Amino acid sequence: MKKEFRQHIEEIVTLNDDDFERIASYFAARRYNKGDFLFRQGDRVYYMYFVVSGLLKLVYNDESGKEHILSFAMEDWWETDYWAYYNRSTASMSLQCLEDSDILCITLSDYQALCADHPKMVSFFLQKATSGHIASQQRILSLLRASAQERYEALLRRYPSLFQRVSKSLIAAYLGVSRETLSRFLPNFGENAKL
Amino acid sequence: MKKEFRQHIEEIVTLNDDDFERIASYFAARRYNKGDFLFRQGDRVYYMYFVVSGLLKLVYNDESGKEHILSFAMEDWWETDYWAYYNRSTASMSLQCLEDSDILCITLSDYQALCADHPKMVSFFLQKATSGHIASQQRILSLLRASAQERYEALLRRYPSLFQRVSKSLIAAYLGVSRETLSRFLPNFGENAKL
Repeated sequence: MKKEFRQHIEEIVTLNDDDFERIASYFAARRYNKGDFLFRQGDRVYYMYFVVSGLLKLVYNDESGKEHILSFAMEDWWETDYWAYYNRSTASMSLQCLEDSDILCITLSDYQALCADHPKMVSFFLQKATSGHIASQQRILSLLRASAQERYEALLRRYPSLFQRVSKSLIAAYLGVSRETLSRFLPNFGENAKL
Repeated sequence: MKKEFRQHIEEIVTLNDDDFERIASYFAARRYNKGDFLFRQGDRVYYMYFVVSGLLKLVYNDESGKEHILSFAMEDWWETDYWAYYNRSTASMSLQCLEDSDILCITLSDYQALCADHPKMVSFFLQKATSGHIASQQRILSLLRASAQERYEALLRRYPSLFQRVSKSLIAAYLGVSRETLSRFLPNFGENAKL
């Protein structure tokens, strides 16, 4: 798990062995099973999570029980309910494993201590937060666009492997369309896609 | 303009006079009039912008010409098309002044030089990028929620002054509802709201 994490950090900043060991000591490693919740709507959010391997969904369930997927978090993603994490508050959404997943977690106070002690990690997290902000702005744009088909095609182009890993119902919940609407795009769906 | 900018930075990191003067030298100050575009869909995006005073809209016009507002940028906001800025690419959206506005702008190469030369600014931008990411995650959540009325009430709670500053048509374009749907929420709109 450590090897992947070091590679991930070293895509942005270089570290010696000693640096890396000290940085890694701020994180706890956990293995979750498919279906496990890292947190549920209404829980206090204690951690920011790094996905070493596996796949998760960040999901909001509305009053009628309908599921809306904010994002799919896969290898090399950082994910949490950021508002709740930084405000030491309760989650507006849930984070649940869609596959068995290896995860690193860090509390807010450890994150702050890590940034204070290792300036390189401030640069690293700035680049990650920027990427997260860009991805969110793109997601807002895609939600505002008129055509669901356009959103579907953009998702297919960006994350082709996702369509082999999650069900059509989840793709529909991410796109904000019904399962029936999604079926109309199916010629592009790929024959091996999960049902 | 400098006084407000220094206050804004010093909410997060402390600076001496010399620090601040050197930091400020990376930015260009510009005054825009109501209606001016900072960039339009399809333009190269050269700058990230800091709003000293005024109000702008970040807007996407779809193929039918319908306007979708991603965000309203007001005092103390950083705004741009982040994907286009960081990838030195063309804008998927437009940034336009809704009021006369005082703006500071920084190019990507100056932003990178500023971060390399002033580690405090890396911490500053990390906090700003994090806030931007949180705001975007909240906006995605609000777009996925079922009820437009709920979105309207959340906006009213968060930015009460906005309702005095922009037209109902713009509020509708931000909420993703028709002008007629918005009218149904009007008892909560405030009597002095702009028409």
